[in-house]
Amino acid sequence: MQPVLINGQWRDSSGSDSFQAENPATCELLPDVYPVSSWEDCDAALEAAVQAAEALWQLPGTIVADFLEAYASRIEERAEELVEMAHLETALPKSPRLADIELPRTTGQLRQAAAAARNGSWSLPTIDTKTGIRSVYRSIGPVCVLGPNNFPFAFGSISGGDFAAAVAAGNPVIAKANSSHPGTTRLFAEEAQLAAEQTGLPAGTIQLLYRMPHADGERLVADPRIGATGYTGSRSAGLSLKAAADARGKPIYLELSSVNPIVMLPGALEERGAELAEEFTGSCLMGTGQFCTNPGLVILVDGEVTRTFVEAVTQGFQDAPVGTLLSRSVQTSLQSNLSILLEAGAQLLAGNTSVEEDRCCFANTLLQITGDQFVAAPETMQTEVFGNSSLLMVASSTEQVCEAIDQLEGNLTGCIYSHTGGEDDADYDRIAPRLRQRVGRLLNDKMPTGVAVSSAMNHGGPYPATGHPGFTAVGIPASLVRFSMLQSYDNVRSHRLPAILQDANPTGETWRLIDEQWSQAAVG
Amino acid sequence: MQPVLINGQWRDSSGSDSFQAENPATCELLPDVYPVSSWEDCDAALEAAVQAAEALWQLPGTIVADFLEAYASRIEERAEELVEMAHLETALPKSPRLADIELPRTTGQLRQAAAAARNGSWSLPTIDTKTGIRSVYRSIGPVCVLGPNNFPFAFGSISGGDFAAAVAAGNPVIAKANSSHPGTTRLFAEEAQLAAEQTGLPAGTIQLLYRMPHADGERLVADPRIGATGYTGSRSAGLSLKAAADARGKPIYLELSSVNPIVMLPGALEERGAELAEEFTGSCLMGTGQFCTNPGLVILVDGEVTRTFVEAVTQGFQDAPVGTLLSRSVQTSLQSNLSILLEAGAQLLAGNTSVEEDRCCFANTLLQITGDQFVAAPETMQTEVFGNSSLLMVASSTEQVCEAIDQLEGNLTGCIYSHTGGEDDADYDRIAPRLRQRVGRLLNDKMPTGVAVSSAMNHGGPYPATGHPGFTAVGIPASLVRFSMLQSYDNVRSHRLPAILQDANPTGETWRLIDEQWSQAAVG
Repeated sequence: MQPVLINGQWRDSSGSDSFQAENPATCELLPDVYPVSSWEDCDAALEAAVQAAEALWQLPGTIVADFLEAYASRIEERAEELVEMAHLETALPKSPRLADIELPRTTGQLRQAAAAARNGSWSLPTIDTKTGIRSVYRSIGPVCVLGPNNFPFAFGSISGGDFAAAVAAGNPVIAKANSSHPGTTRLFAEEAQLAAEQTGLPAGTIQLLYRMPHADGERLVADPRIGATGYTGSRSAGLSLKAAADARGKPIYLELSSVNPIVMLPGALEERGAELAEEFTGSCLMGTGQFCTNPGLVILVDGEVTRTFVEAVTQGFQDAPVGTLLSRSVQTSLQSNLSILLEAGAQLLAGNTSVEEDRCCFANTLLQITGDQFVAAPETMQTEVFGNSSLLMVASSTEQVCEAIDQLEGNLTGCIYSHTGGEDDADYDRIAPRLRQRVGRLLNDKMPTGVAVSSAMNHGGPYPATGHPGFTAVGIPASLVRFSMLQSYDNVRSHRLPAILQDANPTGETWRLIDEQWSQAAVG
Repeated sequence: MQPVLINGQWRDSSGSDSFQAENPATCELLPDVYPVSSWEDCDAALEAAVQAAEALWQLPGTIVADFLEAYASRIEERAEELVEMAHLETALPKSPRLADIELPRTTGQLRQAAAAARNGSWSLPTIDTKTGIRSVYRSIGPVCVLGPNNFPFAFGSISGGDFAAAVAAGNPVIAKANSSHPGTTRLFAEEAQLAAEQTGLPAGTIQLLYRMPHADGERLVADPRIGATGYTGSRSAGLSLKAAADARGKPIYLELSSVNPIVMLPGALEERGAELAEEFTGSCLMGTGQFCTNPGLVILVDGEVTRTFVEAVTQGFQDAPVGTLLSRSVQTSLQSNLSILLEAGAQLLAGNTSVEEDRCCFANTLLQITGDQFVAAPETMQTEVFGNSSLLMVASSTEQVCEAIDQLEGNLTGCIYSHTGGEDDADYDRIAPRLRQRVGRLLNDKMPTGVAVSSAMNHGGPYPATGHPGFTAVGIPASLVRFSMLQSYDNVRSHRLPAILQDANPTGETWRLIDEQWSQAAVG
């Protein structure tokens, strides 16, 4: 049985249950056995995290930056083993996906977070010399991170965006591994702990539990000792955690399901329909469709060009190779969610068949409904089908497109493809303001699957896509600010202020809002 | 029966119940009769607010700024009547309190909000030229504002900080009057509606309901059409609203109770004990103690100077005139909360007696407990006693002070008074980091009752002082950002971007984060 990481020590879990991950490419259990922690482990981790938070509070952000950079380098040194393990546990291709895309993204993100911790501008230091009041966003306390199954590196609970943001904001992290890739998470935790020791972080800064009973997970995110939680995963589990955290006033940032609607306007299809069919099919089936921002709902207006587009996409889905899914449970969910749509009257264009029995997979599946069907049952028709599948909605008119969009739940992204010469502009202008209110990121003429690590990114959106419409899981400063609290200092003696609020600019490069003007200068 | 303001019209409420406010200085009912709205009123207001939100979305921030400025001027023109009405309904002194302090603060706050709406820097526009992604915080949708009883102007539901912030962020407001000053709220709403018409705001931008059954209030803040809610008031009502809003994923910003601990270190008392006793007594009894940031818990270390301080404060409480409370229900709560502390063993130093029967008031009351009593029953000992009362906790040692502070709930403010020559510095350094984590605003050598409208202000704090530790009810930008959502634009054609994200700087003075640098320049 693998040990858990608590208070800087790899030690036996107090739990007696265990689990093993499965290789989705063979449907065979992997050999390593991982513990299901009892509350005793959670409690010990919380205790250590509180101590670590107090110690971190006294340390400069440069130490956290040193840690994040050392950790990124250690990840690169162990890249081969990480890629091998993640491939075994998730069946994601080693190259380019894991080795050449996700791993560099992960280390790049850790280094961006390090730069933010070193510079401090993310914390929006604000100085009002007239009133003698100064404020800054500072660490919120121990952060629990629960990562998803689909990005074992870039969104991993001890390597991904939430982890990097929480640590860069000065908080210890209690990571809960995703049960589908515990081995990958363990390798990361080993390197994180070594980097923490190497750079002098307090013992309980980085901790790892693999799994715990649901009730203990809910107790964990609501514990008085927790500062906040970051969660990416299924809606049902996320909303249970949210209810528990909300009841105790504990912030929880959720990234939940999203169907990521795409509107393909007739002018765009007329202009470049074949190209768009190929672009959509590629984006939708990439990574076997297992992206948070996978385009799961395509909104079209009935007509000749739309019919041609639908035919091309159908052909594309039939011709494309069938990727392996992350786990048997992803496959089961995919099939049962497709059934919901089919039972509600969706027409099957391609797929919905088993393919091979000895790996986790299911045929690329394309469904179609009318606009009438959508507006008659909008909730059912927004069932997220996570995996290599999409639903095409063919509306009778732009009017009906608007009506359908007004029924959309909150989503991470929404796209509109339109004619480059402006032929769709009247439709665009009617549709865009409505779609804008329903999504975190609005795109033009581009698939949503790429999520750049950018200061302007919003990888979030209105509920239920996420738990709070003002924050993003990717992009600095907003992703860090989630894991902080606003702390104001009123008439506090100068030498007692945190360095970032004293008159001198602590780095010479930190941006501060001084008397309503952003400045890198010293005060006065 | 007074009409309600829905969709730009003063019209009869659909509700059949009614209420009247009471003059707390005479205990007599005031003549005006106000309706208790049924859900029909709420629903109509929501419908109109949705229309207004869509229209506002298309309008530039300058129109909102024009409105806020016109409204501030109209308030000044009607100042005498507002002051008269508020005095009748709250018994707060006309001068200086209402006319010379609260009214200028209110109009100043509206004008600060106008400047923010005009300039746009509050929305943290962010441009990443390398990825083609741009983001900005934009209006969240209809905001419900429920104001408290203690600041009929500056925190009023249609005139105060939440109102100004929600409107400046581009949202319509559905205001629910506080039942203790419906007439004051009505006068504000009259002027707000006239200013809205004068400056061309959509019809349902400003709406007013006076009261509704609790169940309808909970339904209102959770309605799919609501963007967010701002609430200031009692903890129990606030937490019921929070539970309703949370369950539907609707942001709600609460400012709830706070005992605002003050630590008086021995060196400070030795140096200027008499002066501090006077300062504390004045701050605590000002406005009959009815401030959100009233110092309700004073933490002292046992010793000669502390005993002298306690004697002086006791004398001060006995000698000070007894102010009038805001309502009979405030008096009832005050007395019952004092009983909780007394029954838990607090020692009575002054007060706890009725004074006059024909107005709402109760003797200035001072209680004392030991540190041992506090740490034995920390929850009970933090019972907020809203009004002219305070609780002194005398600890046996600095160690026990720390132990008590570790048991504090989240508070709006926390203060430490220390020796100006540094004699208390060792104690300060032990206490301050602990207190810092429990409060939104940390003060030195200053009473917390003043809440400056400053960009660096945090009038908020950890739960349960407020609902989210990253936001403040006072101060721009954070107070506005609460009522917005983060909207990212990815590859969106330049002319389709909101003006604030296009290459040109829309005002020439708007601060934008362009490629990680804050700038007032155009892009490129």
